[in-house]
Amino acid sequence: MKVNVNPVKGMRDFLPADVRLREYVKSTITAVYEKQGFSLIDTPALENIEMLTNSEGGDNLQLIFKVLKRGEKLQLTKPDLTEDDLADLGLRYDLTLPLTRFYASNKDKLPTPFKAMQIGTVYRAERQQKGRYRAFTQCDIDVISEAGHIAECELIHSTAKALMALEFKSFKVKISDRRILSAVILSAGFAQDNIASICTTLDKADKIGWEQVESEIVASGLEQSKVQSLLNTIRGLNIDSLEDQGVANDISGPLQEVISIVSAQAKGNYEIVFTPTLVRGMGYYTGMVFEIETEGLGLSVAGGGRYDNMIGKWIGTKVPAVGFSIGFERIILLLQERGFTPPQQGKRIAVLYNLEHDSLTQVLELAEQLRDQGYLVSTIPARNKLGKQLDQIESDGFDGYYTFAKGEISSLTRS
Amino acid sequence: MKVNVNPVKGMRDFLPADVRLREYVKSTITAVYEKQGFSLIDTPALENIEMLTNSEGGDNLQLIFKVLKRGEKLQLTKPDLTEDDLADLGLRYDLTLPLTRFYASNKDKLPTPFKAMQIGTVYRAERQQKGRYRAFTQCDIDVISEAGHIAECELIHSTAKALMALEFKSFKVKISDRRILSAVILSAGFAQDNIASICTTLDKADKIGWEQVESEIVASGLEQSKVQSLLNTIRGLNIDSLEDQGVANDISGPLQEVISIVSAQAKGNYEIVFTPTLVRGMGYYTGMVFEIETEGLGLSVAGGGRYDNMIGKWIGTKVPAVGFSIGFERIILLLQERGFTPPQQGKRIAVLYNLEHDSLTQVLELAEQLRDQGYLVSTIPARNKLGKQLDQIESDGFDGYYTFAKGEISSLTRS
Repeated sequence: MKVNVNPVKGMRDFLPADVRLREYVKSTITAVYEKQGFSLIDTPALENIEMLTNSEGGDNLQLIFKVLKRGEKLQLTKPDLTEDDLADLGLRYDLTLPLTRFYASNKDKLPTPFKAMQIGTVYRAERQQKGRYRAFTQCDIDVISEAGHIAECELIHSTAKALMALEFKSFKVKISDRRILSAVILSAGFAQDNIASICTTLDKADKIGWEQVESEIVASGLEQSKVQSLLNTIRGLNIDSLEDQGVANDISGPLQEVISIVSAQAKGNYEIVFTPTLVRGMGYYTGMVFEIETEGLGLSVAGGGRYDNMIGKWIGTKVPAVGFSIGFERIILLLQERGFTPPQQGKRIAVLYNLEHDSLTQVLELAEQLRDQGYLVSTIPARNKLGKQLDQIESDGFDGYYTFAKGEISSLTRS
Repeated sequence: MKVNVNPVKGMRDFLPADVRLREYVKSTITAVYEKQGFSLIDTPALENIEMLTNSEGGDNLQLIFKVLKRGEKLQLTKPDLTEDDLADLGLRYDLTLPLTRFYASNKDKLPTPFKAMQIGTVYRAERQQKGRYRAFTQCDIDVISEAGHIAECELIHSTAKALMALEFKSFKVKISDRRILSAVILSAGFAQDNIASICTTLDKADKIGWEQVESEIVASGLEQSKVQSLLNTIRGLNIDSLEDQGVANDISGPLQEVISIVSAQAKGNYEIVFTPTLVRGMGYYTGMVFEIETEGLGLSVAGGGRYDNMIGKWIGTKVPAVGFSIGFERIILLLQERGFTPPQQGKRIAVLYNLEHDSLTQVLELAEQLRDQGYLVSTIPARNKLGKQLDQIESDGFDGYYTFAKGEISSLTRS
């Protein structure tokens, strides 16, 4: 039987060196977040299908892996079968939706405010393309039940500290408040209905340029002169004069304070910049939104915002919430490109043995002694050609080897 | 809208205290295994459905969560639909099958022998009962490409060391070789076809007693006198005289050596006992099998064995393999029953603030200073009744609190 032994399409096997890097990044981030007062929680990768399909996940709702009903619940002879008849569970497409369900379910057992951190795999049946995976890790922190913008300050600086702990430098935090663009668009004379599509186009300004933004918005059927005037207003928006553009004090004030406080906390290690065109995709954001961009390439490595209406959907009473998610896979990619290797737990030693001369007892006792001394030890049968085997174990990541003939550890880093 | 906010049936949300214990157990086990020369790998939770359904997973094949095909591949109008028409992926039911696929797929990049460790969630659509979950963690080590019984010695002592690091004491390793029972059953005059069902019954000897074993085997249609004679032989089996019962030297010899070497390594901290009735459920085992039982309750907390034919199924050439799996959920349960609390990363401090008196800048600067001193710090708005709030934050797991009025940290452990 010829069998396909590759991992599922769009998903990955992780070799020991991959896992070492991923675990290092996870533990570095969680150690920072723990210090910042966040606590790890965990939820199942599966959620009930109605929870997922009724959520505000936008395009992600098209990408859900659905799980077939089991036993008597699966009725295949029913006429006009639909997916709804067949599936009762689905794999989560992000960690925010499960967090809101978790909070609704466990709120009586959780502190106020609740500062959650999550690291977990999410699943999206994306069309295959380079660098896009159907299973990938997300790494989120959220503050629930805190309406004040101390939550935004803490989330932004905590995420920045996590990136700095991974030796990212001079990155840029872009920040805005969703309600600013809405206010400016309305006061430029457009209708409520135009806001979403204008915002989607504006979000691309950095990538496609302002001319292209203008022609796309005009092409959608809006009056050119009004569009030009709107874009001029937006490009002229200044954090210190938002009130002049019709932005309410209770929107501009907190944003100004977050920028000034985080700037001070950054101590020049990173910058925070008011970016009025920042929209962020998810439909559920209700207030401030933010994103972190690396120096140079301008790649987004983290994004988040306030979503005050999501938990209320489950429990009926409004619960403020705000979150920030690190793009774990992109961080891994950037670290790999940089040639970063994580620090080791200890030296890895290969104990090379030959049971024709060395007794099993002797081999295992020696291995245990070396482990007691702090080495990470593998016992490996010696092959006839020692030189070739040493090349092999060096490329397998060992730092040294022990042979009974020599009776000592020899270093492998012979360069 | 009234929504069900519970986790999926049979699955669990983990609160901060749960995760702290689970992460402590994971990191304790992986630190031991790393020292023993094992390297973490990771595979997707989803596998192609043919891989799962064609595997030797026994009853687990009835418990697979299957994933619906997507897009054009999902044809709902086809007559006589079956599950095979609808599903192309499934959630893994254990970590051994994915490991063998992983090895077949990546063998050219892996060392020889390959010592893998895995910690991951597996999924089984079990009927609900206490202590049984539909998503649970497994924690496996395996040695691949090592035919010699040094692999068994290393696996057993490594697993025992992991349990000792979690303060399990005086447990018992039961060990046998599957081929011993087969040989004894055949030489007692039974047919090859009788082996599986006799073994399944024998496996329960510890639970149901020998009389019950006898009547069950006789009830299956076998001759009582022959059954009695077989059971007498099995009860009289002795590790030092297996050859007298028709067990071949190349089976008894390695088993004797493993028992004697591991006994020596155990240094009286645990024992290893030849247990001829040990079978272990999985159909894929080909040689030695082993299990660890805790003291007192006699609960099985780890199990494993040699499975030399599984990888060959994928790649055509035989690759020896042997593994040992810790029952992670049972370990957690036993630790919880014991009232075990994991050591903390640092003292958890609540900074209580009131923005009517304390500025946001001041609050956040103070929090950062305390973090720099090694504390895990949360900023929490002060409520009117301090006493009540202190009770609350103490029950939330904080060790101390800071107020700007006092200007210092006060301890919360007032007992």
